[in-house]
Order: sequence, then structure tokens, then C-alpha cells
Amino acid sequence: MTRADQATAVDAAEVLARCDHLGTLTAVPGIVHRAYLTPEHAAANAATAAWMAAAGMDTWTDAAGNIVGRYEGADPEAPVLLLGSHLDTVPNAGRYDGPLGVMLAIAVVARLHERGERLPFPIEVIGFGDEEGTRFGSTLLGSRAVAGTWDPRWWELRDAEGVTLVEAFQTFGLDPSRVGEAAHDPQRVLGYLEAHIEQGPYLEEAGRPLGVVSAIAGAHRFQLTITGKAGHAGGVPMDRRRDALVGASQAVLDIERLAREMDCVATVGMIEVAPGAANVIPGEASFSLDVRAATDEGRDACWRAIQDAIQEFCQERRLVLSIEETHSAPAEAPAPRLVDAVRAGIAATGDDDPLVLLSKAGHDAMAIAAMTDWAMLFIACAGGVSHHPAEAVTEADVAAALDAFEAAVVSLVR
Amino acid sequence: MTRADQATAVDAAEVLARCDHLGTLTAVPGIVHRAYLTPEHAAANAATAAWMAAAGMDTWTDAAGNIVGRYEGADPEAPVLLLGSHLDTVPNAGRYDGPLGVMLAIAVVARLHERGERLPFPIEVIGFGDEEGTRFGSTLLGSRAVAGTWDPRWWELRDAEGVTLVEAFQTFGLDPSRVGEAAHDPQRVLGYLEAHIEQGPYLEEAGRPLGVVSAIAGAHRFQLTITGKAGHAGGVPMDRRRDALVGASQAVLDIERLAREMDCVATVGMIEVAPGAANVIPGEASFSLDVRAATDEGRDACWRAIQDAIQEFCQERRLVLSIEETHSAPAEAPAPRLVDAVRAGIAATGDDDPLVLLSKAGHDAMAIAAMTDWAMLFIACAGGVSHHPAEAVTEADVAAALDAFEAAVVSLVR
Repeated sequence: MTRADQATAVDAAEVLARCDHLGTLTAVPGIVHRAYLTPEHAAANAATAAWMAAAGMDTWTDAAGNIVGRYEGADPEAPVLLLGSHLDTVPNAGRYDGPLGVMLAIAVVARLHERGERLPFPIEVIGFGDEEGTRFGSTLLGSRAVAGTWDPRWWELRDAEGVTLVEAFQTFGLDPSRVGEAAHDPQRVLGYLEAHIEQGPYLEEAGRPLGVVSAIAGAHRFQLTITGKAGHAGGVPMDRRRDALVGASQAVLDIERLAREMDCVATVGMIEVAPGAANVIPGEASFSLDVRAATDEGRDACWRAIQDAIQEFCQERRLVLSIEETHSAPAEAPAPRLVDAVRAGIAATGDDDPLVLLSKAGHDAMAIAAMTDWAMLFIACAGGVSHHPAEAVTEADVAAALDAFEAAVVSLVR
Repeated sequence: MTRADQATAVDAAEVLARCDHLGTLTAVPGIVHRAYLTPEHAAANAATAAWMAAAGMDTWTDAAGNIVGRYEGADPEAPVLLLGSHLDTVPNAGRYDGPLGVMLAIAVVARLHERGERLPFPIEVIGFGDEEGTRFGSTLLGSRAVAGTWDPRWWELRDAEGVTLVEAFQTFGLDPSRVGEAAHDPQRVLGYLEAHIEQGPYLEEAGRPLGVVSAIAGAHRFQLTITGKAGHAGGVPMDRRRDALVGASQAVLDIERLAREMDCVATVGMIEVAPGAANVIPGEASFSLDVRAATDEGRDACWRAIQDAIQEFCQERRLVLSIEETHSAPAEAPAPRLVDAVRAGIAATGDDDPLVLLSKAGHDAMAIAAMTDWAMLFIACAGGVSHHPAEAVTEADVAAALDAFEAAVVSLVR
């Protein structure tokens, strides 16, 4: 084993150990659940800041609660290269979706620091506080603050306990009126690179550790509510019922069938019924819908078909459908010059013709796209499993990712 | 209008006004939601005790939190006639399911008291604290305490906030170790009569205010859990999913279809999915099932068919079903001598051949059946609607119910 190989191996193991440690900073012991602006978010920021500082970076929490580390460039005035991913998780998450990208970025800087090497441009590594949108329903809050696309209407979003986003900012020690200070001036930014697990099965099946992202499919999200009539579970005969959950169940099956037929992915991840008692017919059922496809046109056609199907049986069953759009993101394409950098990075690990992957999962890069160019490096994960405790990567693949990510960054020096 | 007619009309209006007042004693302003051992339960007990006292009764809270009023008999040692119904409600309830029966019983005693009349036997009116089982999942806790069938395993039942039943007893000022004192000695009880809204459409459709109950169908309740695999809403292709909510939705539709085919009523009133985020495929879906039928045999056959159907598609879709039985009550038949009393009561209002109704809804009488004989008087309700704010009765029907209930009680004197 050469000296360089040894250093790489140690770094990959440390990257994984840091992901493991972050997994212990959770709202619920025994599972990984870390939401925006919570005590565990603060703990993850503190741990990440310490690793950033050890890699030679100045660190701070930005005005939206993101943790930032800056590694100065030879020219401090040169436009900054942003590297990052998110530190928040879904409930009962794995350890790598988000944190792996942040830890890889820190490890790249640590290598530069170890060599005493300054690039011509500064690097800022960002651990975004909210990508998943678990707490307030709206995703990408951290990266949208950095992109300067913060929407003041979000302040009144509430979490499950009724806490508003503005209250959560204050509890976290942030001043809501200063959130604009998290935004970057696009003129002062070189671009954004993000490393992330694939969250799909294709790299592993192809036997490749790394791939480059061709585009991120835009997710379209809705909150659908079906209203029928509550009634007594014993008293109301079956043929007189207007059971909202029966309607929602038909919707879930139609959504699944249409997504298969129309080559989309569509998911109902949340459902609630009211009044919500074992002996009461549900009068209302409310559920989320997330639709994604390779193209915005395909996605929108699927959503129209879903709507038609639900409307039709709601009419038959004397149910009423109401629809609220909660999130809509167009498909985003990366910048060719940064895709070339990622390709150069992967080539440095021996793969000259990397797999090119459409990401149906959303990423911080989608929000950053409003502010600067971006590209993404994907890392194989076991069985394509993500948003699940079984999420797994191999140390060898992480070592390759680290080499590739470093080479991609260095390739931007010209 | 004769003097007697006038008195009746006033009493019916007062019964309705008292139901309205109880409707304001709620956990959630603007809707009716009153669960066992809550501050609003205490408030309902206090209001009811005041009305009992005004009707000449001694009052106390029994060892299970039920409110009791005793109207002494000519022979205080004679076995006691119990009248009652429940004061708790489902979430977002109507005003009459339960309270109407308690208020009618108090009004019957008020008439005796107004006339200075003592029956040979004492009467105790009971406002049961828990029939719906909204808070702790297990129904009929109040009446089962009175029947002497309290199960010590219930102490560890928890409400949605994690409060155990034993803690709720203590907070309400009750000593859990003394719950046995709520039980009656069957030798000292004459029987139990309960008035209740029909919670079905049949009386109203027949144009009759009152009916007599032939039997109470036993509800069989289960908590079903379908386990699949959580995953990323964007990353996992449709054909690789094991979506627990898709399984639960198929179950809800199968349950509805089989209940229709097999002449049962079956209801899924609660559902929860985990992890429960818009961008995560549900790995687990847990839902309640309540099955009822005219006979226990019909009900059990329907449940077997439901199980078979769910097992079959769970196998096809690589999902795992687990089943927990949460409640099982056999069908209960009333005592002919008390049914005759209710018939005599209805006859006193001019209907010699009352409609005989099977109750698919459960009632406190089911629990009391373990301790003494029972019979029930049903009152028409608008559209058969119950467990819903639109629950409604007419003042004329309540006036008829009051006359009939009084006549039924008096008919037991011989």
C-alpha cells in the first residue's frame, strides 16, 4: 500500500465514523431522526464545526442555521467554491443521506490543509440545516436561504407541535429578520459541488462506485383531502356510508397504478383521518402525494391522470376532493463545466466513462441552482435503499468518492 | 293542552337544554370532545350531579369516576333499579349519544320527586364515565367497573400523551386500589334500563319516535399492522417497492367489499403510517378494524374472509400482516321481563306494537349484562347520523321518550 493509498483509506474510515457519530445525535434514541432547528440539529452543527476547524476552516452558523466552514483561498477575493449537502434527516433515517456529502467535503479540505495547499479560490463547506422538510413540510429551507430564495410566507409554517418557523428560529438563537444574510451574491460564487449517495439501485447493479448526475427530477407535492361524512361504526349501514378513508384508499391504489403505467414515481407518505376513533367512520382523510418523473411534462401528465381518477370515484361515492399544492420544483440540469469537473474526478479513480444518472430524489443542488451552477457526484448505496436505517455504503466506495471529489475540486484550478 | 302535556313538554325542552350545556364541556372549544377522567369529564359530572340533586337524589362519584344519583325507595333495602347511559363522547361528537339517556333518567326521577312519589325500590341513575373508549382504546370502562368486570391489566393502558389509566385515576382524585367498590352486588339489583338514540335510520324512516332493542351486536375489534419497507420517494422505482400504505389501502377496500357482501358492518376508523414523511415510502401502516353483525357467527365469518383477503395480497406484495385483537364482545340479548317494561312504556305513548331493533352500536348495557338483566329504549335520530356534530333529535320524540321511560319504570312496580 502506498502512502497516498493509506491516507485515503484512513480518511474514508473517518468519514464513515463521523456519519456514525452524527447518527447518534437524534430526537429519538435508537433511531436517526434529526430535524431542522432542533437541539439535535445544534449538536450536529457543533460536531461538524469541530471537524471543519480541524481541517483548517473558520466556522460559523449562518443566518438560517446552516453550519459553514471557510477554507481561505490564495486570493481571498476570488469567487468562492461551495461544497455541501444537508445534516437533517427523515424520521427513522439512515446515516448517509446528506451527512456523507458534508463529511466528504470536509475531508477534501482536510487533505488540502494537511498538504498546506491553498487553491486560488476560497472553499466554503455548508452543512444545510433543512433539505428533507420533515419538520415544517416545506423542503430545502437551508439551501433556499443560501440561494437567496427565502419566501417570507414560510415564517408561519407550523411543525407538528404547532411551533411556527419564526418561533423555531428564535429558539435556535437566530434572528428571523436577518435570514437574508445567509444568501450569497451569485457574482461572488464559483459554483456548487455536492456528493450524495445514489438512493437508487443502478450504480450497485452496474458494479460501479461512482456516477455523475445528468439532472434532478422536480418533485411535485400536494396535500389532498377527501371529505365524506363521519358516523357511527355500528349504526350506519354500509350502503349509506360516505367513508373518507375508503376514498383515500382508492386514491392510493390509483396513484400506484398510474405511476407504474406512466413511468413516474408517486408516493403517499403521510395520511391522517378525522375524527380518528376505532368506532367512528372517517369523515375526512388527508394525505400527501409526491410525484416525480424524468421530465416535467411526464410528471404533469401523471398528476393530471391521478386527479381525474380521484375526481371520478369521489363523484361516484359522494366524496369531495380538495387539493393544495405544497411544493413544485422544475427538473434542474447541471452546468457542463462542473459536470466535466466531476467526470475528471471520477476519471482520476480509473473510470473514464462513468454512469450518468437521473436523480429522482431532490437535493440541495436544486435550490442552489437558482443562485449558481452546480454538479453532483453519486456514490453507490446497498440495494438502492435510502430513508431507512438499512442505508449502507462500502468503505472502498467512500474512499473512491473522496479521491474523485478532491480531484474534481482541484480540476477547477486553471 | 292538559296540565300533564305541559309538564312533559317543559321536561323535554329541559332535557335538550341540558344536553346542549354538556356539549359545551369539551376539550376542544367549538366541537364536542369529552373523554374519560379529563377536566371536562369532571365538569360534566358536576353539572349532572347538580341536576340529580335538584331531582331529589343523593349524589356521589363512584370509585371509577362515574357520577351516581340515588332516589330512595319506600323500602331502602329493596334491590335497586339502575338507569343510565354515558357522559363521554367520541372526538367531534354530537350532543345526544350518551347524555340524552342520562338526562332522560334524571327527568324521570324529577317527575317522581315533583309528585312526592316513592317507588317500592330505590333508583340509581348512573352517568358512566367511559363507554366510547376514546382515550384508552378499551371501551365501556365505566360500566364494566359497575358490573364488577374490571380487568387489572387495563391499568397500564396509555392515552395518546402516554398517561396510564392508573395515573389518570390518581389525577382525577380516584384511588385505583378501590375501583372494586364501584361494582354492584347482583343480588341487590333489580335490573338496568337505558334510553339511547338509535344511531341508525330505521325509526325515522318508519315515522316512529321510539323502538325497543332486541339485542346488541357484539363488536370485534382488531389492530392490524402491515409491514413493508421504507424507502426514498424519489430513489426507489415503483416495481421494487414494498409500500405498507398500498397494502393497507387494499385492505380498507377489501374490508368494505366483504362487509357489504356478507351483510356486516366493518369500519377502519384509525390509520397511521411510519416513518410518516411526504418523501418517504411508508414502511409500516397500522389501522383499526371494527366488525359487527346481527349474529356472532356472521361477524366471525366476515372477519375470517377479511383476514384471508389481506393475507393473500400481503403475500403477493411481499408485505407482512400482524393482528392484535383489541376488543371482543358477544352479542347480548335483553331480559324479556324488562323488554316487556319498555314495551309497556312505549304503549303508554300510543304505540302498542313498537319497532324492534337490533343495535349494531355497542352500549353500556352490554357491560351491565354481566351483572344484571337489562333492556333498552331507542329514540329516533335525524338521518341515523351519530358520532357527528349533526346528530339531532326532535323535542316531540324526546317528550315521547320521557313519557315512555317513566311508564317503563313505573310498570316495574307490582
